[in-house]
Amino acid sequence: MTRLERVMNELEKKDLRQMIVCDPDSIWYLTGVDVAPYERLFALLLQKDKEPVLFVNKLFFIPEDITYPLVWHTDSDDPVAQIASYVDPSRPLGIDKEWPARFLIPLMEALPSLQVQLSSDCVDDCRAIKDEEEKEKMRIASRINDLVISRAKDYVKVGMTEKQVAAFIDNEYLKEGCEGPSFTTIVSFGANAADPHHEPDDTVLKEGDCILFDIGCRKDRYCSDMTRTYFCGQPREEYAKIHDLVRSANEKAEAMIRPGIPICELDRAARELIRAAGYGEYFNHRLGHFIGQTDHEKGDVSETNTTLTKPGMIFSIEPGVYLPGRFGVRVEDLVLVTEDGCEVLNKIDKHYAIIG
Amino acid sequence: MTRLERVMNELEKKDLRQMIVCDPDSIWYLTGVDVAPYERLFALLLQKDKEPVLFVNKLFFIPEDITYPLVWHTDSDDPVAQIASYVDPSRPLGIDKEWPARFLIPLMEALPSLQVQLSSDCVDDCRAIKDEEEKEKMRIASRINDLVISRAKDYVKVGMTEKQVAAFIDNEYLKEGCEGPSFTTIVSFGANAADPHHEPDDTVLKEGDCILFDIGCRKDRYCSDMTRTYFCGQPREEYAKIHDLVRSANEKAEAMIRPGIPICELDRAARELIRAAGYGEYFNHRLGHFIGQTDHEKGDVSETNTTLTKPGMIFSIEPGVYLPGRFGVRVEDLVLVTEDGCEVLNKIDKHYAIIG
Repeated sequence: MTRLERVMNELEKKDLRQMIVCDPDSIWYLTGVDVAPYERLFALLLQKDKEPVLFVNKLFFIPEDITYPLVWHTDSDDPVAQIASYVDPSRPLGIDKEWPARFLIPLMEALPSLQVQLSSDCVDDCRAIKDEEEKEKMRIASRINDLVISRAKDYVKVGMTEKQVAAFIDNEYLKEGCEGPSFTTIVSFGANAADPHHEPDDTVLKEGDCILFDIGCRKDRYCSDMTRTYFCGQPREEYAKIHDLVRSANEKAEAMIRPGIPICELDRAARELIRAAGYGEYFNHRLGHFIGQTDHEKGDVSETNTTLTKPGMIFSIEPGVYLPGRFGVRVEDLVLVTEDGCEVLNKIDKHYAIIG
Repeated sequence: MTRLERVMNELEKKDLRQMIVCDPDSIWYLTGVDVAPYERLFALLLQKDKEPVLFVNKLFFIPEDITYPLVWHTDSDDPVAQIASYVDPSRPLGIDKEWPARFLIPLMEALPSLQVQLSSDCVDDCRAIKDEEEKEKMRIASRINDLVISRAKDYVKVGMTEKQVAAFIDNEYLKEGCEGPSFTTIVSFGANAADPHHEPDDTVLKEGDCILFDIGCRKDRYCSDMTRTYFCGQPREEYAKIHDLVRSANEKAEAMIRPGIPICELDRAARELIRAAGYGEYFNHRLGHFIGQTDHEKGDVSETNTTLTKPGMIFSIEPGVYLPGRFGVRVEDLVLVTEDGCEVLNKIDKHYAIIG
């Protein structure tokens, strides 16, 4: 079955005969057309028993061998009116979760009787199950990530700034032929690690700091994402203990993974371990997220996601403990659900080490 | 008048008493709170005669001195339901143009009688008029851009790849203390320049190619953006003539700028010049765009924008001619509308030069 057929089947299950897809990664996934539209309209209209129609600005290049009908517009045209003329206003229209209000509201104004409903799941649930080609690309991106983090471990030294180390990492990705980092490279020293989304700044590494790397690359469109936390000099006993705790939570969740597990149970198991040790309130985010063409794809690994794991799913397992103003640890791998268990895509040791 | 007061005045003019702002740059602009929410909900609810309320995930750090009411959520909560409980469903709600369907549709489902309307203009039209502090930051970002393009001119040599030159440019921005490029750095050799949004690849520079740099940086949140086109070796006569034509179109539009000019007239003047020379169909995009905290802010410099220029506006003037499969030229500056004319923020010569 083609990707498009899988998506049309999902729409059928929801009794939807038409849907607007706007996420450029989803459009590439379904058509092979690769456009970065920025603020311009770029959309694929799926319709039952018809060919998908691609709405695209003349500014962008579309391969000549594309067989789908194209509806072109210029910067002076009204592309929402074009879409409105193709939509059947008497039937509900599925909408991509990413479609911004600047297109959705004018479309609803153009077709006041139209019922809209979120239907990204029909595409996203297909994207969540990687095929063989995608799995191989994900493995390669994580292999590069392992390589680059081991180089970063050797590179980082007392006196360097977070920014300097982040620039080193980004450059290593380019040397390995990646498109670049798959998200803003996180290098956090000491108390900065207590902010899970800290952006590298001019903080200088000093003896006694923890060193948190949360890094990933994009290679041939597919992403990696891994976190390791190390220490510069001998860690305080409490911090070393927390590191062991967080690593154990990561390992506990990973050991549970096989097809048919409710995803929320992974989150619960890791969280319970951290809670029992008295640090529950300092683990303030979900256990992980799905990943593929973008670093965060649809799919939470959280307490509320009751979806069952299926072979081909790839997501992160990333428990953390953050003591505000003092210290933070996170240990993160990507895992691929296999027929009978899971493949951890990151091979690099997750115990803490003393570096710098 | 504060920025918030200016925005509330604009809402008043549209008879709107409430609006959801979600663009993180707009929220920073109004509150000073700097969050990169990725897929998580982050929104500021503006309400007449009330303090703005900020809806934010517990994962993000909010400065302690913020005086606005905060409504926190975790990854397990339903933040749209929180917003619904604050909105007055009996009155129209203004919506930020960037709000994605994944929040907007559930809000409309939670409040079926609610009328929504796009109202980003109320914020964006304020953001379009830069204050003195913003103008100075924009000047600094463009000064760095001038410096980096002159270094790139010296650096590029026959045999180098586009990717290599783009990496050099990105690294120069970091050396100058920038956050990074303000968009994917464009370096296009030869026929690649015919695609206005070409991404650097492994194409190697050879004698006879044109070299198009479309580059910009982000420094202290504010962006630059400039294009220059050069030649590697003596250009073909036709290409040199086209370059002169495009530069003249750029200069013609810039010479017209002073307060009170309909923006569409700038586009028309440049386009007319290119059309008269027989290349009209090869100038396939608008003349420019507004810019500030992001490379493309609200505001087209296009044939359809009848807005009058006002002091403090900053936008690009970037005519181009693209001969598919052969060659492309674009010449782009940023301009600041002043009380009696305009200040061109890029000082580097825009004639072609022979480099490489």
